[in-house]
Amino acid sequence: MPELRKDMLTGRWVIISTERSRRPDDFRPPSPSEIRRENPAFCPFCPGNEAKTPPEVYSIRDDGSEPDQPGWKARVVPNKFPALTPGPLPPRKSRGSYQWMEGVGIHEVVIENPDHNHEMADLSLDHLAEILKIYRLRTIAIEQQFHYQYVQIFKNKGRDAGASLSHPHSQIIATPIVPKRIKEEIYGAERLFRNSFRECSICRMLREELQSGERLVFKNEFFVALTPFASRFPFEMAIVPKRHSAFFRQITDEEIVLLAEALKEALNRLKAELSDPPFNLVLHQAPNPQIAEKAWPGIDFYYHWHLEILPILTKVAGFELGTGFYINPVAPESAAEYLRKSEKPKI
Amino acid sequence: MPELRKDMLTGRWVIISTERSRRPDDFRPPSPSEIRRENPAFCPFCPGNEAKTPPEVYSIRDDGSEPDQPGWKARVVPNKFPALTPGPLPPRKSRGSYQWMEGVGIHEVVIENPDHNHEMADLSLDHLAEILKIYRLRTIAIEQQFHYQYVQIFKNKGRDAGASLSHPHSQIIATPIVPKRIKEEIYGAERLFRNSFRECSICRMLREELQSGERLVFKNEFFVALTPFASRFPFEMAIVPKRHSAFFRQITDEEIVLLAEALKEALNRLKAELSDPPFNLVLHQAPNPQIAEKAWPGIDFYYHWHLEILPILTKVAGFELGTGFYINPVAPESAAEYLRKSEKPKI
Repeated sequence: MPELRKDMLTGRWVIISTERSRRPDDFRPPSPSEIRRENPAFCPFCPGNEAKTPPEVYSIRDDGSEPDQPGWKARVVPNKFPALTPGPLPPRKSRGSYQWMEGVGIHEVVIENPDHNHEMADLSLDHLAEILKIYRLRTIAIEQQFHYQYVQIFKNKGRDAGASLSHPHSQIIATPIVPKRIKEEIYGAERLFRNSFRECSICRMLREELQSGERLVFKNEFFVALTPFASRFPFEMAIVPKRHSAFFRQITDEEIVLLAEALKEALNRLKAELSDPPFNLVLHQAPNPQIAEKAWPGIDFYYHWHLEILPILTKVAGFELGTGFYINPVAPESAAEYLRKSEKPKI
Repeated sequence: MPELRKDMLTGRWVIISTERSRRPDDFRPPSPSEIRRENPAFCPFCPGNEAKTPPEVYSIRDDGSEPDQPGWKARVVPNKFPALTPGPLPPRKSRGSYQWMEGVGIHEVVIENPDHNHEMADLSLDHLAEILKIYRLRTIAIEQQFHYQYVQIFKNKGRDAGASLSHPHSQIIATPIVPKRIKEEIYGAERLFRNSFRECSICRMLREELQSGERLVFKNEFFVALTPFASRFPFEMAIVPKRHSAFFRQITDEEIVLLAEALKEALNRLKAELSDPPFNLVLHQAPNPQIAEKAWPGIDFYYHWHLEILPILTKVAGFELGTGFYINPVAPESAAEYLRKSEKPKI
């Protein structure tokens, strides 16, 4: 069973997940067997290899095709090497002065399409919208259990972004506590709402960004892609819904199509202008509604879900790890200008 | 002039440092010129190439040798591409709802020895103690100006740890605000002191760790090297002084020799047991004493300086970036056992 352990000083939780551990001796440069897995014949996410994953939780399939057989357009499967494993809410325990709890949670993989070489940026708008609907559907399903307090949806593209398999996929991890980073956003948004702005800080920020336009990359009727004012990474982008909403689960079918458009535009520009860099994609949403409004009254009004796209073009180093500061050598305004240029002429 | 910008929601500051920016086109795989710089003939940190760095701030030299000429054992020079630049305390400014300030600070490089291939782990104890004395000396010198609120000393070893030059060096960055990560440690330590332990939490933790021994890697009269209970990374280590002290600048000459021993032991074990992995080294100390006691009364009693050694064996990915959680596939107890085994017989 994995363990959640709390760092005494900072309150940061870590997952000690030894079941997915390789032996210490294996912490060496990528081995031939790792490279072999890049070959579709051995890829556990390619059609024909369905038996290499745990049984699917959900799939989009051709009529008449059977679960865990070829004929799918997208599959959701439990992670074969999960960071957290399902179970009831565990109690908090202590060892001396330390706090820990059993590592209970959900860890799923969304295999985005059958083609090993067809990346998220290459998907049709319809297909990408289907993937986003899967994110919504799994969030709602997982949040039926109140003790899965936060659902983190994310994607690692490329080895340098932490992907261990190259077949395009995203991941869903639900944790039995609300992570530090989400709490920071919630408390920050609450403070700004109460003390300064008397409105959602992201709604206000969006208004200012649309007015100035200097950090704007793309917009459509419902979404804005921009390079955040305090970007940590070169060419970092955020995709923000114009309609205020704390919970991603509340996105409508009509909105999801335009989110797919904004996401595809953002990813295509990264790919075209920066030689297809590795990146992380992160969805920030309010915690499980079964606990959110109780823990943070008014969260509906001051929290605002959004996507973050974090290209890996520089290394996070000692200064960042030591201080939590980031050094970004590219001004977000230059990044936005550069990414805007790759705008394709609309036909 | 670089800019410090504040993320509205999380309060996280970033440094937008476009002077050190490469053009956007340069964010591509390592170029031949980058690889060429690994060659000592072109290395700006090798003897004979002193003119390639800004004039030295400090050095340890053979008698009679001239500044910025060969004959040195270690040099401190301003970073040629500084993340922050010296100046008086800048006011906080705003742009719409955003906050920012000019990027004032210090950024120095400590060239640890003349030999391009002689790493920190290979230095003699005497030489390593001299490097640690340089850290102390530069901390004291920089902190004479009260507005350099925090001095971060760190080292990136290896490209994957963020080093752009392979010649062994460490870095010093002083910031005009106390970074988020340090504030978290200070507030956490203060809370534990006041509400729970009535003593320094690190002193208490050390006592428990010495008793159980399961996370112990090395100890001598003054220092303990251990794998922290909530380690973020496989084989993460902390080196903690047994004598309570908030300020690294207060370390004695006698203690510095034993810190050099503990550090060399820790680095040698990493090198021997894990194929010389890239790592980050981070020194966490209390902020500038000119402001520390005013901002955090009693900080001398509850904060405890320490070194963190963070091997880069896994990738930080979307889940970590999204949540601030880390997934560590190696239990600190197994890591400590593994590192203890490489103990050399004492003669």
